[in-house]
Amino acid sequence: MDTELSEASRELTVACDAYEIALVTNDVDTLMDLFWDSPDTVRYGPTENLYGSEEIQAFRQNRPSKGLERKVERREITLLDAITGYCNIEFSRETPAGKRIGRQTQFWRKFPEIGWKVVSAHVSLMAI
Amino acid sequence: MDTELSEASRELTVACDAYEIALVTNDVDTLMDLFWDSPDTVRYGPTENLYGSEEIQAFRQNRPSKGLERKVERREITLLDAITGYCNIEFSRETPAGKRIGRQTQFWRKFPEIGWKVVSAHVSLMAI
Repeated sequence: MDTELSEASRELTVACDAYEIALVTNDVDTLMDLFWDSPDTVRYGPTENLYGSEEIQAFRQNRPSKGLERKVERREITLLDAITGYCNIEFSRETPAGKRIGRQTQFWRKFPEIGWKVVSAHVSLMAI
Repeated sequence: MDTELSEASRELTVACDAYEIALVTNDVDTLMDLFWDSPDTVRYGPTENLYGSEEIQAFRQNRPSKGLERKVERREITLLDAITGYCNIEFSRETPAGKRIGRQTQFWRKFPEIGWKVVSAHVSLMAI
């Protein structure tokens, strides 16, 4: 891996780590900052389909701030080039109904000036 | 949109159309051909987490070939550049338990020689 890719990999890992911390602490400002501010940003969640930053922001601000804790069981980050990558994780969460397994897919892009942002994300619980 | 992006958009739309037809007809060869042949390819399905082309291929070959019909309710394709894009769809499927809504997220990359391939995909049913 050349130096540019190596640096990109380090940056993207830092961004993914920051996203995870913001998620479990319900740091909405950081969550929104890490998503691309665009009508083309898409986020599918366990119970919602959101198109564009405005819908995503409205959801973030209205969601319950409890029960967000989760444990990352596996994480795979892949770079396609120095400005494009994807992060897939499996996580587990304790719920009143027992332990649930979820998956999170994020497509990341590094933009000039603003850095790495999620352009498309999909979060789901395993069908049971 | 310049000519290069316009051509890329047309190509990616054709690839997404081809994937949909292959999916509902259970054309495993075409499905596999449209996924990147790499250990870094990831596919999360409603009930399975698959890492690398080998796991994806094993799943495709063993899955039931019935009940694959679905109706695409919404599709959004976005290009980040002439070789990078993503396709998100909402679909519905009639099941013995009633109508279910699903979502499919695909990250596509155009590779030299082999063209557009899915590098990461996530398919899930809405939590109910």
